[in-house]
Amino acid sequence: DRPLALIAGPCALESRAHAMEMSHALVELTGRLGIGLIYKTSFDKANRTSADSPRGLGMEKALPILAEVRERWGCPVLTDVHSAEQCAPVAEAVDVLQIPAFLCRQTDLIVAAARTGRPVNIKKGQFLAPWDMANVVEKMDQAGNPNTLVCERGASFGYNTLVSDMRSLPIMAETGCPVVFDATHSVQQPGGQGKTSGGQRQFVAVLARAAVAVGVAAVFMETHQDPDRAPSDGPNMVHFTDLPAIVETMMAIDRIAKALPAGG
Amino acid sequence: DRPLALIAGPCALESRAHAMEMSHALVELTGRLGIGLIYKTSFDKANRTSADSPRGLGMEKALPILAEVRERWGCPVLTDVHSAEQCAPVAEAVDVLQIPAFLCRQTDLIVAAARTGRPVNIKKGQFLAPWDMANVVEKMDQAGNPNTLVCERGASFGYNTLVSDMRSLPIMAETGCPVVFDATHSVQQPGGQGKTSGGQRQFVAVLARAAVAVGVAAVFMETHQDPDRAPSDGPNMVHFTDLPAIVETMMAIDRIAKALPAGG
Amino acid sequence: DRPLALIAGPCALESRAHAMEMSHALVELTGRLGIGLIYKTSFDKANRTSADSPRGLGMEKALPILAEVRERWGCPVLTDVHSAEQCAPVAEAVDVLQIPAFLCRQTDLIVAAARTGRPVNIKKGQFLAPWDMANVVEKMDQAGNPNTLVCERGASFGYNTLVSDMRSLPIMAETGCPVVFDATHSVQQPGGQGKTSGGQRQFVAVLARAAVAVGVAAVFMETHQDPDRAPSDGPNMVHFTDLPAIVETMMAIDRIAKALPAGG
Amino acid sequence: DRPLALIAGPCALESRAHAMEMSHALVELTGRLGIGLIYKTSFDKANRTSADSPRGLGMEKALPILAEVRERWGCPVLTDVHSAEQCAPVAEAVDVLQIPAFLCRQTDLIVAAARTGRPVNIKKGQFLAPWDMANVVEKMDQAGNPNTLVCERGASFGYNTLVSDMRSLPIMAETGCPVVFDATHSVQQPGGQGKTSGGQRQFVAVLARAAVAVGVAAVFMETHQDPDRAPSDGPNMVHFTDLPAIVETMMAIDRIAKALPAGG
Repeated sequence: DRPLALIAGPCALESRAHAMEMSHALVELTGRLGIGLIYKTSFDKANRTSADSPRGLGMEKALPILAEVRERWGCPVLTDVHSAEQCAPVAEAVDVLQIPAFLCRQTDLIVAAARTGRPVNIKKGQFLAPWDMANVVEKMDQAGNPNTLVCERGASFGYNTLVSDMRSLPIMAETGCPVVFDATHSVQQPGGQGKTSGGQRQFVAVLARAAVAVGVAAVFMETHQDPDRAPSDGPNMVHFTDLPAIVETMMAIDRIAKALPAGG
Repeated sequence: DRPLALIAGPCALESRAHAMEMSHALVELTGRLGIGLIYKTSFDKANRTSADSPRGLGMEKALPILAEVRERWGCPVLTDVHSAEQCAPVAEAVDVLQIPAFLCRQTDLIVAAARTGRPVNIKKGQFLAPWDMANVVEKMDQAGNPNTLVCERGASFGYNTLVSDMRSLPIMAETGCPVVFDATHSVQQPGGQGKTSGGQRQFVAVLARAAVAVGVAAVFMETHQDPDRAPSDGPNMVHFTDLPAIVETMMAIDRIAKALPAGG
Repeated sequence: DRPLALIAGPCALESRAHAMEMSHALVELTGRLGIGLIYKTSFDKANRTSADSPRGLGMEKALPILAEVRERWGCPVLTDVHSAEQCAPVAEAVDVLQIPAFLCRQTDLIVAAARTGRPVNIKKGQFLAPWDMANVVEKMDQAGNPNTLVCERGASFGYNTLVSDMRSLPIMAETGCPVVFDATHSVQQPGGQGKTSGGQRQFVAVLARAAVAVGVAAVFMETHQDPDRAPSDGPNMVHFTDLPAIVETMMAIDRIAKALPAGG
Repeated sequence: DRPLALIAGPCALESRAHAMEMSHALVELTGRLGIGLIYKTSFDKANRTSADSPRGLGMEKALPILAEVRERWGCPVLTDVHSAEQCAPVAEAVDVLQIPAFLCRQTDLIVAAARTGRPVNIKKGQFLAPWDMANVVEKMDQAGNPNTLVCERGASFGYNTLVSDMRSLPIMAETGCPVVFDATHSVQQPGGQGKTSGGQRQFVAVLARAAVAVGVAAVFMETHQDPDRAPSDGPNMVHFTDLPAIVETMMAIDRIAKALPAGG
């Protein structure tokens, strides 16, 4: 078992300056702590609760910035795609494509992402049982791409609430794919603020601890220097100043979890 | 309150001959019973559980057939769209566009569907609270299309199971939009057969009765002359020979439900 | 299929005068409308959210009042029991015993209730699948009492929320027992007001309509002349002045639902 | 924060010989590993799925055996109570009383347990939100007993399934009471085998790891030398031979979890 990696960054690509500043800070922090980083940010928030909410920079302006992050810091970059057409151009600028949870069953999108040859991180739909991710992975395999990451981000639990079932981590691991735990969206309260989604930032570290103790390849955790003013997912992003302690805790639990016998 | 309408047809457009035969039979039946019909069928099953499952005829072959159904019987036709690009061409061939449940939050798709000027039936996501459909309707309104239908098709309830919350019907009616109850997909068991979804055909009529008694504008009910051999949604489609009794029951309950005082 | 019956009354037995007044009003109303009545009231609220909430008159003071209601109006009376010891004395004063939902798996209580020979209305636990009520009915049968009523009152759906699955009505009917739909507690929001449970009175009639259209032997509906001042379940009790319209609607739907073919 | 304790033993008290053998083995094991032990076993399974399932030895025969375990090994003993009358005699024989999850809202039972002065471990109902345990704790406090333990054992998640929400652990900790994680019943599948409950033994260690990483005072874990032949909860009890590795893992994670900063 390889040590825990971190997929982190601000939810949305706000500007070139913000992206360079955040990625620099994350590269510096993770280098100091000794944990692998994949920088995550989104160029389009394609499924906002309300049409009034900001969407993001858009693909054309964003891809050069993502490529610049990658080149400047030598750090792999991940972003999400929302249509089959986006996959090829996005794959030129970033290292890992991500399929949003609502779209995890859209066959054309999965196939287009697979055909780029890039690793693809697929979020498990809030409506999907963990064992059903095997069918999603098979779609990737049949399209000739064995590099799937499977990602837990919470399951629907009544209205406007998600619950993280830690059993899903070993169940999804049976696919043979690396398992990612998205600690940010697992504490989302979808639609919970009427025209935007709410979140429970205080439980990000709680669920991350739990997932790492069970055993995962990576934790996904959005962060921002001022989350309460962020254009999206503010309520569930971690303050950048809180990130070091959370990451150190996860690393310590990961070391012991992976050293212990699997059956224990 | 206008009398109940029926949105019905086979899940998938299997062939021209099958479409003409099924639509003829439905036009004849609903004409005899005196209930309005919208003929429903899909040209692409874009989110199958497994990549091995059949997808359908595809848009190019399907649209002329859908247009032919409309012209031959003078009957409105509904089909679902899966990407923004499909909306304009589909709107030339059919009368009502439908947004699949998984895609009900994809802003670009909603806007593209709205801009066709056609009525749009939006399935409520399995992960969405009924009050959150107000935001979806607002996306339609802002795109200049007030003709939204909102459709209940079940909410996630544990794994591989949906539950139909009858409270969602009056809650969604507060949007001012006609409310549709999808009795077919509400009894789906998503992913429940491993590589395909299961279903509980025996509960279609049960849930349809309940929804009509609460009060809806239309019931959506897929039907097939041989559902156990249908390429998709077989376990939850109604045998065509069982449809007349179910529709007559719904019509009788609808008449009394709409004649009674709203508060009662 | 026999016509719909009504199980109604105020949640709690507040005083002799209140019980006589409410029961009189209900006997008069149901006689006028032509629907069978079972008068329901509780002598002890044994599982309040908070220890500070009122409990009720207690068994000793209550039983003579319940017996008086029965004799004065010739109307069957139902009340709930909370321990095996209560069953025999309660069975002397009332016609139907009721097992609360939380207690539906307590074997000793079921057996003691069964042994009184009285019909027993068993609420399905919020944590129980409808098919699991077959095991509860079997406990009654093995204790020599075939007169079980099985009652739907909502299933846990996330936190502080219940959902009514209308499929549970035909599933529980397979036990051969009359099925009751509790429209009052199905709209309860357990613990939803911090130290008391909330409720959604506006959905009582909605869910009652749905259940009657599916087909039930009786609807359970708590009512009060001033529910917002009632000692318990106020938020989900119906105003007595609203009851006639709701009952007439249910009776009209029941007549048509039971006249229609079962398969429809 | 004190180190993790273990509440363990076979689900049911099968015989004096079995109790002495199991308790001896557990005392020996936990002494060797250096973890505090509370021996758990039940004298009555009062809420079996089916009336045909074995109930247990009964209180009268069981209490001397429980007292003997306590005296022989100097080890605290825990058992569950099902009625107010049982509390006083049980409190003479054991050190900790336990309230079953279905009964966590029965005020008389809580008060009677509280009045014994013994610590009381209260299982959170499968139907209860974690924040609602504050009301249960207040019932204990008002009855004069501040020694409540609050225990997570899963929340209803659809039918025949529970889910463990790890957020419930810090939420319940806000009561100021020690938090216990019941890893055995959290993997129960209530009623899942028709006439008995099923279970997922393979996830006991998974959920225990997660809970300990979040931070708990104790883990509750039933164990048996031959669980597949045990009279109750066999599918979710851990083989005694697997227990040492699981406990060592939990202890290692506990040490690191409690050494780390609370915010991390």
